[in-house]
Amino acid sequence: MGEIAEKGIRAKAASYQMVNVSTIEKNEALAMIAKQLIAEQSYIMMENKKDLEVGSENGLTTAVLDRIMLDEKRIMAMAEAIQLLIELPDPIGETLETIEKENGLLIKKERVPLGVIGMIYEARPNVTIDAATLSLKTGNAVILRGSSSAQHSNQAIIKVIHQALKNTKLPVDAVQLIEDTSRETAKELFHASEYLDVLIPRGSKNLIDTVVRESTVPVLETGAGNCHIYLDESADFAMATEIIVNAKTQRPSVCNAVESLVIQEKWLELHGKELLKLLHDTGIRLFGDNKVLAHYPEVNQATEADWSTEYLDLSLSVKTVANVLEAVQHINTYGTKHSEAILTNDKVAAKFFLTNVDAAAVYHNASTRFTDGFEFGYGAEIGISTQKLHARGPMGLPALTSTKYFIYGQGQIRS
Amino acid sequence: MGEIAEKGIRAKAASYQMVNVSTIEKNEALAMIAKQLIAEQSYIMMENKKDLEVGSENGLTTAVLDRIMLDEKRIMAMAEAIQLLIELPDPIGETLETIEKENGLLIKKERVPLGVIGMIYEARPNVTIDAATLSLKTGNAVILRGSSSAQHSNQAIIKVIHQALKNTKLPVDAVQLIEDTSRETAKELFHASEYLDVLIPRGSKNLIDTVVRESTVPVLETGAGNCHIYLDESADFAMATEIIVNAKTQRPSVCNAVESLVIQEKWLELHGKELLKLLHDTGIRLFGDNKVLAHYPEVNQATEADWSTEYLDLSLSVKTVANVLEAVQHINTYGTKHSEAILTNDKVAAKFFLTNVDAAAVYHNASTRFTDGFEFGYGAEIGISTQKLHARGPMGLPALTSTKYFIYGQGQIRS
Repeated sequence: MGEIAEKGIRAKAASYQMVNVSTIEKNEALAMIAKQLIAEQSYIMMENKKDLEVGSENGLTTAVLDRIMLDEKRIMAMAEAIQLLIELPDPIGETLETIEKENGLLIKKERVPLGVIGMIYEARPNVTIDAATLSLKTGNAVILRGSSSAQHSNQAIIKVIHQALKNTKLPVDAVQLIEDTSRETAKELFHASEYLDVLIPRGSKNLIDTVVRESTVPVLETGAGNCHIYLDESADFAMATEIIVNAKTQRPSVCNAVESLVIQEKWLELHGKELLKLLHDTGIRLFGDNKVLAHYPEVNQATEADWSTEYLDLSLSVKTVANVLEAVQHINTYGTKHSEAILTNDKVAAKFFLTNVDAAAVYHNASTRFTDGFEFGYGAEIGISTQKLHARGPMGLPALTSTKYFIYGQGQIRS
Repeated sequence: MGEIAEKGIRAKAASYQMVNVSTIEKNEALAMIAKQLIAEQSYIMMENKKDLEVGSENGLTTAVLDRIMLDEKRIMAMAEAIQLLIELPDPIGETLETIEKENGLLIKKERVPLGVIGMIYEARPNVTIDAATLSLKTGNAVILRGSSSAQHSNQAIIKVIHQALKNTKLPVDAVQLIEDTSRETAKELFHASEYLDVLIPRGSKNLIDTVVRESTVPVLETGAGNCHIYLDESADFAMATEIIVNAKTQRPSVCNAVESLVIQEKWLELHGKELLKLLHDTGIRLFGDNKVLAHYPEVNQATEADWSTEYLDLSLSVKTVANVLEAVQHINTYGTKHSEAILTNDKVAAKFFLTNVDAAAVYHNASTRFTDGFEFGYGAEIGISTQKLHARGPMGLPALTSTKYFIYGQGQIRS
């Protein structure tokens, strides 16, 4: 029996035990994990150092090495995140619907765990602890399949989790790490419907696209963000500059950063030069269409590819449109259905934009950077979904649950 | 450009128009469709007759021909179902969450249409009208791909829908039928992520399995029902016989009919012979394990395959277990996560069963036949989901919706 089948069977069995554990038992287990992480931080850092050394030898970039690196501060942050998770309400058991039928049947729709979650992710050991603790809080078992570049760190974290779980009411098999990080085990997970109820890819667009294309297990998709800000004719200049600079520069590498400006042509006439100069002086590289170029010489000529590009750096494309309808059409053509904003004082235009743009989050007069589980007050986040089924936008704990109908009778039959 | 791409582009454009139509406009369009169906019933029956003739020549079974057949009564039933759909509340625009942030941001999570629904189904012209009208009520566009055996009927129904929509505020392109019913167009739909937001297969297990395996478009899965009734030690004999006969014989061909009995061994000792004789005399073919066989000679020896079989006829497998734990393990091993019942007077056993059996609907002392959108009071049903993401169990109108976050600000930026 291969590793996936062996661990799959144990995870399935653990998931059946997890439906019987209480909120208190789950929170006690999470507290034990947080405690053990701190107690074993030297061990974790020692193992992490092995990943960093191998990574250096293999020529990983400084950015990737930084994502892998664990120090006391980062391990403390993990433990603190677990403490916040403990304080969050438990979604399991929540009654979503109650139906009483004339024949006396009582039907209750309640939140239940999904079962076994499969998680495929890149070289970020923090995802190991995040995915494990979010899965346990929602009563799920989880099978983790990380990157070989972080495998020592992941193994150390899993060892610590298992040590912690041994003294709790939760089954140790509820959290398992795939040891074999070859391409084969990823492929096996794509087809492990027998053991997995859902597969969640976290990482690059390439990873996510592969999972969506190949997996027969249902996928919870967290996608890319080619986010736009549309400056309508009546957009306030001061608000526009502040929001654009925030949405582009505050953290350019994240999915809710803005990648493209769409500007109504009269607004461009009036404020274009001043805005473009200001953005350029802030260090933003601009790629514009011909009308934009005419207003400021430091703008580069945009190509068709620029409208679809999620730069994830200090680049920004700039497109001119005649009106809000053209803006909506442009965004629905090139956007990734993540976060889209209109800046305007015109309520009719705002309503039209918010209704007609097809995206998880649509903004009137605010920065796209707010699309985030913590900003929305969910306390925890598994990712931001750009798909339309199950969960859309920032996913809090309920995204890791399913529902079940409980029907209570006294012998009712169907007539 | 192929038919899928051409109709896909038009459906996408129609879906963007659909977000602006009101509940009144949608209901007016549905009323027009109902009216036009009645007005054109002779034409529909004439075209339906062509399918029946070709089907007869091709040797389709009487059961399949009956599913294809449309008469005045069935067309009237379609029109009446549309009338009921009109009366249902519109889920679109419903506010599911309201979050007010300290910085003044107002976040609203509202129900929105999915966009474009793809529907692949077998020879049932009633699905054409069902899928079209449910999609329109929920603000979606739909691309229908039916069976060649019902293609004349489907084309007639689509023509009638288009006639009706011409005089409404809804785009005619919101409902489209694929003319080419070759295997190729089905395969193209599996990968039409550019145009489709979701793909719903309706029909045989084989069809659904193919779609789940091959589709890269997210799938709403309606699965098979290998449903069990477990007779616990304290199950009431009279209630047990009434519920089993109902769940098996009232409509054996449907997914919520019972396919397997699981009997606690002491109950079998006391009541087995009487129950088995009664079921046999009702015309039910029984397949049991050795302990069951020992109680009644007319029981056939069950094979391993029987425990996994959804008979969809008057057959029933019968399995002996020592206790409720063994019953749960048997059901979680062989069930299809559809509808599972325990009959008992023991509240502890009932709670254990309901919590630990992994299924969309779990019953205490009632027939499994109630798992149905109409029985649950949803007024309409797209199918019964056996998957855990998005929708589980009977799917009413909300299953055909997604959500969207609307964020209203006054210039807020992220700090």
